Amino acid sequence: MTVTGPQGFRAAGVAAGIKAGALDLALVVNDGPLDVAAGVFTRNVIKAAPVLWSQEVLKQQRLKAVVLNSGGANAATGPLGFQDTHATAEKVAEVLEAGAIEVAVCSTGLIGERLPMDAVLSGVDIAAKALEASEAASLNAATAVMTTDSKPKQAFKAHRDGWSVGGFAKGAGMLAPNLATMLSVLTTDAVVTKDALDSALRAATKVTFDRLDVDGGTSTNDTVLVLASGASGVEPSDADLVAMLTEVSHDLVMQLRADSEGATKEVDLTVKGARSEADAVAVGRTVAEDNLVKTALFGSDPNWGRIAMALGRAQAHIAPETLSIAINGATLFANGTTAQDRSEADLTGRHIDIVIDLGVGEHEATIFTTDLSHGYVEENSAYSS
Amino acid sequence: MTVTGPQGFRAAGVAAGIKAGALDLALVVNDGPLDVAAGVFTRNVIKAAPVLWSQEVLKQQRLKAVVLNSGGANAATGPLGFQDTHATAEKVAEVLEAGAIEVAVCSTGLIGERLPMDAVLSGVDIAAKALEASEAASLNAATAVMTTDSKPKQAFKAHRDGWSVGGFAKGAGMLAPNLATMLSVLTTDAVVTKDALDSALRAATKVTFDRLDVDGGTSTNDTVLVLASGASGVEPSDADLVAMLTEVSHDLVMQLRADSEGATKEVDLTVKGARSEADAVAVGRTVAEDNLVKTALFGSDPNWGRIAMALGRAQAHIAPETLSIAINGATLFANGTTAQDRSEADLTGRHIDIVIDLGVGEHEATIFTTDLSHGYVEENSAYSS
Repeated sequence: MTVTGPQGFRAAGVAAGIKAGALDLALVVNDGPLDVAAGVFTRNVIKAAPVLWSQEVLKQQRLKAVVLNSGGANAATGPLGFQDTHATAEKVAEVLEAGAIEVAVCSTGLIGERLPMDAVLSGVDIAAKALEASEAASLNAATAVMTTDSKPKQAFKAHRDGWSVGGFAKGAGMLAPNLATMLSVLTTDAVVTKDALDSALRAATKVTFDRLDVDGGTSTNDTVLVLASGASGVEPSDADLVAMLTEVSHDLVMQLRADSEGATKEVDLTVKGARSEADAVAVGRTVAEDNLVKTALFGSDPNWGRIAMALGRAQAHIAPETLSIAINGATLFANGTTAQDRSEADLTGRHIDIVIDLGVGEHEATIFTTDLSHGYVEENSAYSS
Repeated sequence: MTVTGPQGFRAAGVAAGIKAGALDLALVVNDGPLDVAAGVFTRNVIKAAPVLWSQEVLKQQRLKAVVLNSGGANAATGPLGFQDTHATAEKVAEVLEAGAIEVAVCSTGLIGERLPMDAVLSGVDIAAKALEASEAASLNAATAVMTTDSKPKQAFKAHRDGWSVGGFAKGAGMLAPNLATMLSVLTTDAVVTKDALDSALRAATKVTFDRLDVDGGTSTNDTVLVLASGASGVEPSDADLVAMLTEVSHDLVMQLRADSEGATKEVDLTVKGARSEADAVAVGRTVAEDNLVKTALFGSDPNWGRIAMALGRAQAHIAPETLSIAINGATLFANGTTAQDRSEADLTGRHIDIVIDLGVGEHEATIFTTDLSHGYVEENSAYSS
């Protein structure tokens, strides 16, 4: 059990006929007693209709349900696309005897195509009948949101005080730099206030979903929602809530990275010694998005020169003479000049640790990224997404 | 004749032994009567030793000669690398009976390795003896600076008033966003002042070299130099000087793009209707550097949805409802919603025109880019550069 692991939630994932012969519509329902919710959304200026809708809905910080579909992003579809999202929320509200304003909508798939609304609306009926708190229902929901994902991504963590956090996520490309391309629904049975949940979600996503950067693409549809039922009766401290949401989010992010399009390397890119955390993030993202760095990693080549080149164009305070770069524990470049020979860094494994020490401050951040492989090019030149 | 096309210049390209069995050291000499020069350099914070040296030299805006080598970038090599550059300039000054401060140095190749200085210094002797104003010497110089380039890039343009501009360039990857990874030496026999030449070079590179963006990489070594001999005796207007430098630079940039690593598509990405030219450039670069856009182009897929996604994260004023996107003449997205079917855009040819109309102003800019292919990944995962 994951999204239905916390008490007070039911889920379903069904084949609505949006995609041929696959699960494509998911529903997550909060049965309370609380209906507190929070959300974070893509910072892309071009926002999909479901994002525009769900942002409005979340202003109340109350959610009864979330409906999600794969098979179409409903992005760049204009006013008619927004009407489709609204109609979907109305339909869910009708079957759950709730208000549309209590229903968030998430979509993923090809940009620029209208959704087949007959399939979506009849799918909501089917999903409502399939709602369960079971492990199978959770898995179906996590599966129904997949696009190029090769497997569903679920996570769950129980706190010793008797409450828990669960959730699922999808996303395999267009992953960065603020939220992956990515839909995720988190649930908790903790007793929380709106403000505490909102703050905790922002704190958790800032160091997890926001730090996953596979290809620099920021989707039109990125959404992370968290729903709190309060069904455990336990009110955790703010610190515990942040820690639990962060842990479950990190778990999902590691699964997203491992399954991202064409990835053959999973890379933790830590920037330390920065003047500010923002500087550390800026440097990490610039390096993580550099195709010459990414192709070198694909070739298992400890080419720190490309890392130095890439970070030199980041918008951050950098002094060449204090810069050091270590790859998998071997310091290849120290204080502005070569150190150990590059052959000291063994990159043959799947996991790679890069540590960039700017040497100008005390702040740090870690970006989670991958290499750039033939598989990425193959998948993205053949698949219209 | 190209770099020696204008009167008053000699060039040489020789095999100094920096790379095994290939031309690897070039020399361009200005025989005057003028020795006016201007230069633009990489904006990367991590600057190679030859860039640091040549920036100092160019402060006087006088140049007697430029020495260039492939086979090593002399970047991230610390104080010893700077000494190597200085020694190279001193050697050229000695053989030409000039001052080291009149000699610019350019290097290209692997970052983080010292140059074999015995080969470099003896190569200068060989090159000095080979100096000629011939077409063969120009070609040898253009060839000696090649790294992953498959062919030398030269350009020449004569003005009807009796003066001319010539030059060569190298660069095949790490091309962007301010100057390609790229060395270029331009020459002219026009009679010009320091200020006029400097202004004209900046105006020309702004719309040519600065708008080539193949992979977002900004090299540690990017340099464009222009040397004026005044040997034609003709003093052109400022406008003519800008136009001629721009034309020759554009010619070289088109050759750089055509030969860039793995490119199967040459893409002109025009952003119009922008609030400012800076906005147009920002949007163009963001789209040009997006791997999902680039892989779609490789797949000949008119996937305007990825273009809309990519531009939505640019730092520019964008309004979704006024946005339009046309590919090869077919408007696929107009004023915030779908227009013609994507099948109307035929992308099977090598040249692709993308026009993004932001619809919020009167400014425009064109970025010159390519697709992202298997060839790019192959070349850059196998080649340590």
